[in-house]
Amino acid sequence: MKYFVVSEKDHNELVAAAYQKRGYTPDESEDAARLCAEAARHGIRTHNAIKALHLDELFGSGSQGCVPGAEIVQKESRFPAVQCWDAHKKLGQSTAYRALEKCIELADTYGVGIVSVDNAFHYLWGGGYMVEAAQRGYIAYTNCTAALAEVVPFQGKHATLGTNPHSWGFPTTDAIGFPLVVDWATSVVAFGRVEQFKREGMQLPPNAAVDADGNATQDPHKAAALMPFGAHKGYGLSLINEIVAGLIGGSLPTLRSRWIAEDDGEKRAPCFFFQVIHPEAISSGAFAQGRDQAANVKAVIDDILGHGNENCMLPGQMEADAARLSETHGGLLFSEAELKEFNELSIECGMAPWEMGGLKEVEA
Amino acid sequence: MKYFVVSEKDHNELVAAAYQKRGYTPDESEDAARLCAEAARHGIRTHNAIKALHLDELFGSGSQGCVPGAEIVQKESRFPAVQCWDAHKKLGQSTAYRALEKCIELADTYGVGIVSVDNAFHYLWGGGYMVEAAQRGYIAYTNCTAALAEVVPFQGKHATLGTNPHSWGFPTTDAIGFPLVVDWATSVVAFGRVEQFKREGMQLPPNAAVDADGNATQDPHKAAALMPFGAHKGYGLSLINEIVAGLIGGSLPTLRSRWIAEDDGEKRAPCFFFQVIHPEAISSGAFAQGRDQAANVKAVIDDILGHGNENCMLPGQMEADAARLSETHGGLLFSEAELKEFNELSIECGMAPWEMGGLKEVEA
Repeated sequence: MKYFVVSEKDHNELVAAAYQKRGYTPDESEDAARLCAEAARHGIRTHNAIKALHLDELFGSGSQGCVPGAEIVQKESRFPAVQCWDAHKKLGQSTAYRALEKCIELADTYGVGIVSVDNAFHYLWGGGYMVEAAQRGYIAYTNCTAALAEVVPFQGKHATLGTNPHSWGFPTTDAIGFPLVVDWATSVVAFGRVEQFKREGMQLPPNAAVDADGNATQDPHKAAALMPFGAHKGYGLSLINEIVAGLIGGSLPTLRSRWIAEDDGEKRAPCFFFQVIHPEAISSGAFAQGRDQAANVKAVIDDILGHGNENCMLPGQMEADAARLSETHGGLLFSEAELKEFNELSIECGMAPWEMGGLKEVEA
Repeated sequence: MKYFVVSEKDHNELVAAAYQKRGYTPDESEDAARLCAEAARHGIRTHNAIKALHLDELFGSGSQGCVPGAEIVQKESRFPAVQCWDAHKKLGQSTAYRALEKCIELADTYGVGIVSVDNAFHYLWGGGYMVEAAQRGYIAYTNCTAALAEVVPFQGKHATLGTNPHSWGFPTTDAIGFPLVVDWATSVVAFGRVEQFKREGMQLPPNAAVDADGNATQDPHKAAALMPFGAHKGYGLSLINEIVAGLIGGSLPTLRSRWIAEDDGEKRAPCFFFQVIHPEAISSGAFAQGRDQAANVKAVIDDILGHGNENCMLPGQMEADAARLSETHGGLLFSEAELKEFNELSIECGMAPWEMGGLKEVEA
């Protein structure tokens, strides 16, 4: 497929301008552009700027889900390694980057640091924060409650759970050249994929969706709700995000992001949870064959991908390959369709559109 | 099915005697009996005393995997909320109970506490420690590397991963009457189940095992290795335990528990990781409708299991039901076959066998 190479600077200027036009502060707009650039760099097309701005319209500043310029308030606490923040619906990316920084600072002191966030707005690509933490040498984990309840419990009929993702990052860059990042939603597919299957006239994979009566269906036109992956196991993983959010301060999953005009005493914002561990804190230092920690992790991974498993992928590898491609070509890669959407955005922001003829083209 | 009710005291005396006969100290033997009683109480037949002693023979004191009376050594560290221990192959249950206590102590002070354990012996039922922590009001998590590499990576041919379980516990007893415990291995089935399918002449579920050539097979007689659940997602979860173990001090997965006579500079013991979070530390305190934290979690769970999902189960519910049954009947429930194995153990330990006629019988 043909891609156009856009300089990160141009991309970030446009995306930041679009966020500022929606009322976000320059700082928030820079954070938004930064995560969109990371998503594009790592080939995460589902969370690039176009999608991020669309989400902001649907659930964020275009609704009551996000308040530009909001101030985060830290709750007083007797626990020094854990903080709880009220984000007051500040932009998710800004809140998440700050939560990650705070976790790293706490982990440097205590060995582990946690920030839980109430009244949050969705932070988009959880894996992006994990790549960042892992590249800086930390073990990191995050989960958040997805905007809407779209997933049924195992053997359930009605969607009462979010697609609730989990993301883990491990500092494996010294060992294997990139951070190992495990990052996925707890549904088999997202609703975006169901729409894609509809357009393409294809059947859904088995056990991915239920119809209006709660029966499993592979017909995307009949899909009323999604199913968790891995039967009761994926269900348990999805439930974890809801329980963690419920412990933090989140309210009923089926009300989430469904804002109404009057105040009914309910809360409708997602919550998220960040955790960072300093890898020295869990290390015995006593590795076999005199290895150091990085060499030991490399030996473990080499063993796992040896013995005939050489063609297996590692989680985070595709994203690392995409980032390498971006680096090779000196910019972020977008398809022609994506470029057209960016150019509509430029016009909306009163900026000059990117001229396709002036952009480097790449087959990838 | 018919069960016999054995008093917990009689059970624990016999199990502790069996462990002492194998060289374990009275303290260790009590810890072993305690976890076996918890497994029996919660209906976890795969980790009751019979299975625990069998594992000890195969991989523990009967091999080089476990050293009765070993002393745990805590590594010096500049990180106050995280400890790393060298278990020196002490009994897994003793090490795990101590790690959990230490995590709780750290969480009471810092909001979160972590203990990573190098040179461990398998701790058996991870969920048991989570039930304990959750019943005491904490959020807890543990993972460990399984004794043997029996699982192929996603799209792999050769077993290089353990069945590597994850276990989470949540303090939901005030909310719903029992702790929500998510606890499972990352393979679709265990090898014990493959053996059972062989005996019963049944086919394995799809995508549960591969044959010697690495092709998926449903024939239990051809199953050479297990597959992770949920394709790349379960693979990622299994990998996490190996990477965490590799960061702690564990060595090559394919060598794990495969002890040899000479010292080749390798390490062959599993590692484990315990974490406890104080629920107050992540709480915003600002719950909708003036609820407290427990009432909020109850409202979230009621919402998830409402709307037509009333017949869905919660993780930990079957175990809680089993525990209620044990409580009702005033003892631990064992089948006739299990009772016979206990009585063989009694004879081995020079103790009087339990007389079936003297035991209360229950249909359950």
